[in-house]
Amino acid sequence: MNQISKRKRKPAGSSPGSVVYVGSEKTAPVSITRIRYSAQGAEAPTVITPSECRPEPGQAGVVWYTVDGVHNVEILKTLGENFGLHPLVVEDIGNTTQRPKLEGFDGYNFLAAKMITYDGKASRIHTEHISMVYGEGYVLLFLQDPGDLFAPIRQRIESGKGRIRSHGSDYLVYALVDAIVDYYFHVLEEVGERLEKLEDEVVVRPTISTLRAIHNMKRELIALRRSIWPMREVVNAMARDEVSFASSGVKIFLRDLYDHTVHVIDSVETMRDIITGTLDIYLSSVSNRLNEVMKVLTVMSSIFIPLTFIVGIYGMNFHYMPELEWRWGYPAVWVAMLSISAALMMLFKRKRWM
Amino acid sequence: MNQISKRKRKPAGSSPGSVVYVGSEKTAPVSITRIRYSAQGAEAPTVITPSECRPEPGQAGVVWYTVDGVHNVEILKTLGENFGLHPLVVEDIGNTTQRPKLEGFDGYNFLAAKMITYDGKASRIHTEHISMVYGEGYVLLFLQDPGDLFAPIRQRIESGKGRIRSHGSDYLVYALVDAIVDYYFHVLEEVGERLEKLEDEVVVRPTISTLRAIHNMKRELIALRRSIWPMREVVNAMARDEVSFASSGVKIFLRDLYDHTVHVIDSVETMRDIITGTLDIYLSSVSNRLNEVMKVLTVMSSIFIPLTFIVGIYGMNFHYMPELEWRWGYPAVWVAMLSISAALMMLFKRKRWM
Amino acid sequence: MNQISKRKRKPAGSSPGSVVYVGSEKTAPVSITRIRYSAQGAEAPTVITPSECRPEPGQAGVVWYTVDGVHNVEILKTLGENFGLHPLVVEDIGNTTQRPKLEGFDGYNFLAAKMITYDGKASRIHTEHISMVYGEGYVLLFLQDPGDLFAPIRQRIESGKGRIRSHGSDYLVYALVDAIVDYYFHVLEEVGERLEKLEDEVVVRPTISTLRAIHNMKRELIALRRSIWPMREVVNAMARDEVSFASSGVKIFLRDLYDHTVHVIDSVETMRDIITGTLDIYLSSVSNRLNEVMKVLTVMSSIFIPLTFIVGIYGMNFHYMPELEWRWGYPAVWVAMLSISAALMMLFKRKRWM
Amino acid sequence: MNQISKRKRKPAGSSPGSVVYVGSEKTAPVSITRIRYSAQGAEAPTVITPSECRPEPGQAGVVWYTVDGVHNVEILKTLGENFGLHPLVVEDIGNTTQRPKLEGFDGYNFLAAKMITYDGKASRIHTEHISMVYGEGYVLLFLQDPGDLFAPIRQRIESGKGRIRSHGSDYLVYALVDAIVDYYFHVLEEVGERLEKLEDEVVVRPTISTLRAIHNMKRELIALRRSIWPMREVVNAMARDEVSFASSGVKIFLRDLYDHTVHVIDSVETMRDIITGTLDIYLSSVSNRLNEVMKVLTVMSSIFIPLTFIVGIYGMNFHYMPELEWRWGYPAVWVAMLSISAALMMLFKRKRWM
Amino acid sequence: MNQISKRKRKPAGSSPGSVVYVGSEKTAPVSITRIRYSAQGAEAPTVITPSECRPEPGQAGVVWYTVDGVHNVEILKTLGENFGLHPLVVEDIGNTTQRPKLEGFDGYNFLAAKMITYDGKASRIHTEHISMVYGEGYVLLFLQDPGDLFAPIRQRIESGKGRIRSHGSDYLVYALVDAIVDYYFHVLEEVGERLEKLEDEVVVRPTISTLRAIHNMKRELIALRRSIWPMREVVNAMARDEVSFASSGVKIFLRDLYDHTVHVIDSVETMRDIITGTLDIYLSSVSNRLNEVMKVLTVMSSIFIPLTFIVGIYGMNFHYMPELEWRWGYPAVWVAMLSISAALMMLFKRKRWM
Repeated sequence: MNQISKRKRKPAGSSPGSVVYVGSEKTAPVSITRIRYSAQGAEAPTVITPSECRPEPGQAGVVWYTVDGVHNVEILKTLGENFGLHPLVVEDIGNTTQRPKLEGFDGYNFLAAKMITYDGKASRIHTEHISMVYGEGYVLLFLQDPGDLFAPIRQRIESGKGRIRSHGSDYLVYALVDAIVDYYFHVLEEVGERLEKLEDEVVVRPTISTLRAIHNMKRELIALRRSIWPMREVVNAMARDEVSFASSGVKIFLRDLYDHTVHVIDSVETMRDIITGTLDIYLSSVSNRLNEVMKVLTVMSSIFIPLTFIVGIYGMNFHYMPELEWRWGYPAVWVAMLSISAALMMLFKRKRWM
Repeated sequence: MNQISKRKRKPAGSSPGSVVYVGSEKTAPVSITRIRYSAQGAEAPTVITPSECRPEPGQAGVVWYTVDGVHNVEILKTLGENFGLHPLVVEDIGNTTQRPKLEGFDGYNFLAAKMITYDGKASRIHTEHISMVYGEGYVLLFLQDPGDLFAPIRQRIESGKGRIRSHGSDYLVYALVDAIVDYYFHVLEEVGERLEKLEDEVVVRPTISTLRAIHNMKRELIALRRSIWPMREVVNAMARDEVSFASSGVKIFLRDLYDHTVHVIDSVETMRDIITGTLDIYLSSVSNRLNEVMKVLTVMSSIFIPLTFIVGIYGMNFHYMPELEWRWGYPAVWVAMLSISAALMMLFKRKRWM
Repeated sequence: MNQISKRKRKPAGSSPGSVVYVGSEKTAPVSITRIRYSAQGAEAPTVITPSECRPEPGQAGVVWYTVDGVHNVEILKTLGENFGLHPLVVEDIGNTTQRPKLEGFDGYNFLAAKMITYDGKASRIHTEHISMVYGEGYVLLFLQDPGDLFAPIRQRIESGKGRIRSHGSDYLVYALVDAIVDYYFHVLEEVGERLEKLEDEVVVRPTISTLRAIHNMKRELIALRRSIWPMREVVNAMARDEVSFASSGVKIFLRDLYDHTVHVIDSVETMRDIITGTLDIYLSSVSNRLNEVMKVLTVMSSIFIPLTFIVGIYGMNFHYMPELEWRWGYPAVWVAMLSISAALMMLFKRKRWM
Repeated sequence: MNQISKRKRKPAGSSPGSVVYVGSEKTAPVSITRIRYSAQGAEAPTVITPSECRPEPGQAGVVWYTVDGVHNVEILKTLGENFGLHPLVVEDIGNTTQRPKLEGFDGYNFLAAKMITYDGKASRIHTEHISMVYGEGYVLLFLQDPGDLFAPIRQRIESGKGRIRSHGSDYLVYALVDAIVDYYFHVLEEVGERLEKLEDEVVVRPTISTLRAIHNMKRELIALRRSIWPMREVVNAMARDEVSFASSGVKIFLRDLYDHTVHVIDSVETMRDIITGTLDIYLSSVSNRLNEVMKVLTVMSSIFIPLTFIVGIYGMNFHYMPELEWRWGYPAVWVAMLSISAALMMLFKRKRWM
Repeated sequence: MNQISKRKRKPAGSSPGSVVYVGSEKTAPVSITRIRYSAQGAEAPTVITPSECRPEPGQAGVVWYTVDGVHNVEILKTLGENFGLHPLVVEDIGNTTQRPKLEGFDGYNFLAAKMITYDGKASRIHTEHISMVYGEGYVLLFLQDPGDLFAPIRQRIESGKGRIRSHGSDYLVYALVDAIVDYYFHVLEEVGERLEKLEDEVVVRPTISTLRAIHNMKRELIALRRSIWPMREVVNAMARDEVSFASSGVKIFLRDLYDHTVHVIDSVETMRDIITGTLDIYLSSVSNRLNEVMKVLTVMSSIFIPLTFIVGIYGMNFHYMPELEWRWGYPAVWVAMLSISAALMMLFKRKRWM
């Protein structure tokens, strides 16, 4: 959750633009998949070597390369050379702690984002570093972990459904970012459901583990917010064309996407407000239960302590204690004690302590 | 209350602009009502079929279509084609979780809003998704649920009262949004009354259910705020003509409407401040009552525990205890005990614990 | 205090610009007073009928009309027609829940403000809706309640003191708003004095009624803030001439007035900070007193409970208990008990519980 | 501390620009001191009469007038006439509650500031109203209280050290404001030292007086912040030359001065954060001590209450109680009691209550 | 931690631009090291005298001077004269409490920054004042303490690795600031690790020292934030070329560096949010433990106090008490007592107090 990198960064003062993989260690081989498509049709996905992965100028349509792993520094360097990327871009691709951003360069744009998914089994949020380099006619997509998160987009390309094949690479980038934002909604639904359960739990039977769950959810929301806020700026920059690329037809879609990211942020903020309220409820009900406990103690003690005192009196061994010899002494004490306890009980009833 | 959609959204990565109804399931038939009016007069409301619902260019006056349900995707698609709407607009009409927004397109504008009403029976706030498409001479109004929320506007058109018939579709849009904002005031009045009751209750006799009521009201205010804030931007955009349409005569009304939405937001913020203060009062009075309980316990214990000790002394069975044989031993013990309790009582009186 | 209107608003969807009095019910007759003045001299105040109250073009000097009540809708309508006011202006004049605002129209400006006074007897803040319509040569002032709040200005006009008679209607408007802002200072002084009393009380002898007083003051400050913040924008707009009218000589005064409103807001914010700190003190001293109570209970119990146990031992009736027959058994028990209590007392002294 | 003026302001609605002294009452005579200097040399300070205090056009160098008191309204009026000041400026000079501001007029500027010093004896912050009128060749300085706060500047002028004599009146104004800001640093150092003492105290031995000290420091910081924030805007306006006067050489100094005020504000905000944390520590340690007290009570009660019950059993006077006649009854009871108390002690040890 | 300077500043009102060392006292000698390099090669570091340290116009390549100490005022003055620095710049170099800033002058820029390192042994953060003066062809670096923090940069120059030798002084400045920001990440990692330990500790076994650790970390984060926020503005100003110097090739690096500072700030804010949550957990678990303690006390007292009362009854010495003579009186009392305690235990079990 804590996104302060666990892995060591490159040493302070080392050369900027030197490519170093920053993230949890990995050895899985990295494969590159290419999909070529245009309004006319789409090629099947093909696995290619890093050296085959290079711009193909003059070619019609769009080429979509997917690199499913950023821990192989050599591949990153090769691709950086093939596509003429700035060393800092290659460094950012390999740095999984990079914040979402959009940066424009000569002839291409660089976009970093966070894919967030909910890991149902571990019941925790999983964050993945996604980066894209895109230019006229191509999109180069880097995934931190292999997986098939963008399968629906691939299928739309293959089946020719929707308008994706008739647009350029700008629309593909839009579609990819749209999918990332859609995943945010899914995560929020999961978190929202757990939040509702927490709200019920805190009212019905709050325990110390409820407190920990509240704290964890707070941390999750902090982390979510941290990943999603910069996405808003990225999408806004795309929609406003500060970093020029998108055609005006795609911009309508980007404005809509911006609207979605605002919706997501809004939901996260709302949940933060609610979880804060839940913590208040928790603390209040702890206080309430303390009150309840103390009332029981006070009622029990206040009734029996005076009575115990009274029976103590007549347990004294003084030679001269006239009451002890009275015929009705014992019953009289009972009457006195019952009256006292009745009076105290009425008092506590009136105070609503019983 | 939680506006994170309960219904599943379309799968992540699916084609944007695909029309899917997002909201609680429904099967009621959807009817479309048409009202034609101009400065000369007004037609009676007529129920029409989806295919009849299409722009009528060259016709004088205004046509107001009301579609009372957005769960029938086929009807939405038909209307989208008839009016030449962008797929994303049709998608947003069918998505009841859409945030309020105003978007300008070629020849028409799209406006999404939230109608908020107070359901007296269930004593909870009801939120409804409202959307409008409007252009020269027509307004297409989509309601999530059938109902007659805009009856007063229909009556003004039919009776020819006010200035509505002499203005164009821009004034009708203004009138509809004005009515929505008026409903906000009604809801705020209801919430305000309950808030005052809560404030009394928290001072007079706070219980754990008061706490829950405070938490619920907080959540309601968060939800209200979330629906109303974006409305402010929508109305501001209309008044400033960022999305051009309104005639200068109507703009004065829009500025006034903007003023109303600011008033509503202001009231919501004020209520949030007050409910926060109410929670503080609640927590303080819980602490106060704990103090009161503890004082009773302390006073009772502090007075009787020493006395019980004293009577315990003379309940001991030592063979040699001279006091026991004294003639005035027993009365002397009583005097000692009464003195001690009087002294303690005076002490507690001085500390204001009694 | 709660400015969410108690009175019902006009029904949602009713015609905008329809004049309805929104406020607490009233039947007192409404009178209109006219004062004409110029650099040459000033007429005595004259009571006039609504139909006499109309613009007098071509006349030199300034005419100041005061309407002391806005609950007579007929009079408002008549004046609206006489002065050619926009229906929304007339509506806002009659709506006592209207927020402060400044709006420019063709040939006249409309200004709404809140007069705040401190009602010493009821010891609560009284808010009154004030509105002004002003143009070249005239100011039309509407008061919610009759009263003589602006008497000093009338006297300055009558006596010719100061520079008021030599300026136009813009200076009169400035003088009226300046008086309103001066009243804010008076209210703040009253609130400030009560705040200081509260601060003393919370330290010396806090009770549950202190808590309620804190909560009430918080609410008053929220309400003050709510009335005064928009005034700042009104005065700023006047000083910056966004709504053109003021001559450059008057603008220096308006800038000074703006400075005063900033001072008022600053004081309100400071008081809010202080009252929040006062609540913290209150809560802390409640906790402190609980601590004190618990220490007494603990000390008393911890000392006497062991002693009571000891005397209980020798109250047992076992046939074989050697100590009971010892000559010095009883004194030995006393020595033991005194030693134990001395040890415990020293322990509690060291812990500073005694 | 509470800067809401204690003295009555002029009555609401009175003529703006009327000069009234607002501040604590005073009768000390007011003297005016004149210092003339130029690059060539400096006159000794001369005491002059109000009528001598007037602009001296055509004269080379700078004249610095110091008026050490603003409670003599006649003198203020005379000077106002001599220098042709706007009535509002003269009003602001006499109003010791005026917030810091910079206002430009024809031919002169008006600057109001707060001098803050730490009164070591009373150990509280002392605030003084300082105002300056400055134009080409002269600075008119008004002090609320007589004193020699600006002695180092006078000495620099007299000795010719530094660059002050070779610059114009703009540099003198800079030097005066720079001195005021330097005094803020001194006050912050004092407050910072007391804050550190408080932080130690709250950890080592917090009492109710610690709480009051925290509250007082909070109020001091609120007051400091309130005086210093507007100074930032004043210095910024001078540095940015919104109100034109400063030569470009002096502007570098003003930018540096702006930097200092930002530093001061930054320190105040940091201290506010720290004092808030200190309050949290205080509250937590109060809770901790309550816990400690309760543990002692619980341990004592839980151990002795069962034992007392046991000895109570064998104090009963039933005729038939076989244990009483047993030879080892008494020792057996002791064994039982010691076992019980050992078991309970072990339990409490495990729970870390002992 | 508290950055309000401990050392006395120059007296208020003293001449601005007078060079005074503000910081902890020091007497170590100050040495100056010079490194000359260009695309062709690099000289070895040479120790030079202050008078040798002066601009070398007309020379190709870059000269980097490092002054490792700012407490020798004479050296600062000499360098100020050699390089023609404004007196305020020299003053800021000697003032170790100076906030980070970037200021442009004729022909050179001045940059102040804070180097933050984590002192593992004392386990606290160490802040050092760093300042740079740079112009065409040279960088003059001032360190507060001697040390080899920038060794990796020196090595890159010496070895010719990376692109540093082929760029001008703008790139060297970038590289130095980049190294400073890299150190921030290292410090954040250390703080992050301790934060995680604290989070575990607060859940597993919170003590009063945990509270102090939380408070200290809060203060550290406040101090970090205070040092790092202004750095963001410095880097932003460099990247946006408000203070002109950087070549367009270096600007891409500066934008990347800006991104890093945003990342650092973001992490600090996140940690502040988390530490606040940790304090909440701490307070809650203190309350929870109080509850636990009170439950034990209540259960013990509530069970044994009534029993003790019962045995007290039959310890009374009344002559006429029929139960005492019953054959089964004693066993009957036992039965009664066991029933009562069983009933109470069941009650407490149901309330989950046992």
